Amino acid sequence: MTRPIANAELEARILRRLDSLTKPPGSLGRLEEIALRVGLIQNSAMPALERKAMLIFCADHGVVEEGVSPYPAEVTRQMLANFQAGGAAINVLCRNFGIDAVVVDMGVGKPTRNFTREAAMTREEASEAIERGRAHADIADILGAGEMGIGNSTSAAALLAAFTGLDPAETAGRGTGLDDAGLSRKVQTIRKALALHPTDPSDGLGVLAALGGREIAAIVGLILGAAERRRVLVLDGFIACSAALVAKAMEPAALDYVFFAHRSAEKGHARMLEALGARPLIDLEMRLGEGSGAAIGIALIEAAVRLYREMATFESAGVSTA
Amino acid sequence: MTRPIANAELEARILRRLDSLTKPPGSLGRLEEIALRVGLIQNSAMPALERKAMLIFCADHGVVEEGVSPYPAEVTRQMLANFQAGGAAINVLCRNFGIDAVVVDMGVGKPTRNFTREAAMTREEASEAIERGRAHADIADILGAGEMGIGNSTSAAALLAAFTGLDPAETAGRGTGLDDAGLSRKVQTIRKALALHPTDPSDGLGVLAALGGREIAAIVGLILGAAERRRVLVLDGFIACSAALVAKAMEPAALDYVFFAHRSAEKGHARMLEALGARPLIDLEMRLGEGSGAAIGIALIEAAVRLYREMATFESAGVSTA
Repeated sequence: MTRPIANAELEARILRRLDSLTKPPGSLGRLEEIALRVGLIQNSAMPALERKAMLIFCADHGVVEEGVSPYPAEVTRQMLANFQAGGAAINVLCRNFGIDAVVVDMGVGKPTRNFTREAAMTREEASEAIERGRAHADIADILGAGEMGIGNSTSAAALLAAFTGLDPAETAGRGTGLDDAGLSRKVQTIRKALALHPTDPSDGLGVLAALGGREIAAIVGLILGAAERRRVLVLDGFIACSAALVAKAMEPAALDYVFFAHRSAEKGHARMLEALGARPLIDLEMRLGEGSGAAIGIALIEAAVRLYREMATFESAGVSTA
Repeated sequence: MTRPIANAELEARILRRLDSLTKPPGSLGRLEEIALRVGLIQNSAMPALERKAMLIFCADHGVVEEGVSPYPAEVTRQMLANFQAGGAAINVLCRNFGIDAVVVDMGVGKPTRNFTREAAMTREEASEAIERGRAHADIADILGAGEMGIGNSTSAAALLAAFTGLDPAETAGRGTGLDDAGLSRKVQTIRKALALHPTDPSDGLGVLAALGGREIAAIVGLILGAAERRRVLVLDGFIACSAALVAKAMEPAALDYVFFAHRSAEKGHARMLEALGARPLIDLEMRLGEGSGAAIGIALIEAAVRLYREMATFESAGVSTA
């Protein structure tokens, strides 16, 4: 069961401690907000982050047939091997920040159906993928959600259009690097899919089954599971955040447990963050996915929690107050 | 001697390697720009950052007599002790990111002169402080510049006004937390100082001597020394960046070696970054100083360099290209 994290008494205790630390009140800016929220998520005045894990969910997409990616579909499997060998960007970032990288094959080589012709998944298939993601929610104190799947920015842009009513020309971007003709094809592909599937934005599972992918469904499950288990979850960019649109429709309070790591350079991400009421931590113009932005987010959140835990107080350090 | 870092042949080599790594071209955004610049700074196609150090220069300021800080002057000495005991924010951040914290007492308890009455330092005193900072430029591959000194945001705001011609009402902010009356006093104090010292913005040392402080002078020296030794230097917020205004007047090419870590919430910092033509890496609304923003900047730069060094290439990983 998911509970909203609001707790006025605990919040007051955490804010008192923040103001007792040897720094002008509020001078650590958003790092103070982060420490507060981690405390509320963990329901503790002394939050702690021991184990850090990054989940990298990989899956293939039938919609790739429509020519929506400059990369061939087999790149999903090749990148899965690269993740397992430790050579991808997310592996380097996880090693650098002490995060366990956990690669989850959600159906590489077994693509979802082409959603311009039929629903990508049945509701049952979508539910199963959600459950697989949910099962990973207790492996660490702080979880990053990353993904890989050629074609999945088309799925994410379709989800954004379905949940917000925005035209696909507003939600679809160049993904891994489409040219103008490819982008126009992508927009048309999504328009065709939306016309075929008159989805109801309040039916999260239905929208996900029609237009989503198994890695996106797994991230939906990870969000729901993290909220149930009071774990801190850090979302990556455009594709990972499309799962938050689904989770919001299914269980709005679950988003209390989510940090949005960064604003991606992928076109629709700013609108998506707006739809989610989210304020990302950084903007380094990244657009890689895999969890790369989330890894940096985890590093910032860990730093914020350590500041909260380890700084001396004015009293303990014998420093005069203002 | 300081050389500009531009090197078209080396830049082309680094960009070729960046595009050979298993990611869509450019998809690591500003992390790719960072890796390129570190390569140019080190004059190497395989840049490396082994030792990381944060310099925390501490000094006292005569202008505190004018009531420009909500904290008493003795807090500088108390915080120096806190840094040495490992209890301050910068200590926690340095431990978290594997950065050596090096505290340098630039004259705590021996304040500069009150610059509303006479120059803060003689040119000789300012030069000596510059040399002390410069002497620290070879202690690591990447250096952070931090500071502590009650009253030093008044000095930094005076320097910004002197170098840009902006009115002190535009350059002075609340520092550690001034109320409206205190802020108005701070603006008046700086106006008085500017009227007393008709400085020449092309005379960096003269402006520094009139309005600066010893920790600011030390950071000027660290910038000049880092550029001479081709070290990567990461500046913190409003006070550290005021040293960059001085360094720019003395040796403009030295700024090629500088990364600007963050946009501080301190009022004048956005204008200061503009005057420096700088684009900071992050904006977390921090306004603490000490090097706290620079520590996060070092962590990001280290991650960027490791990505560049350690990622597999399309060829080595057997991944198909677009």
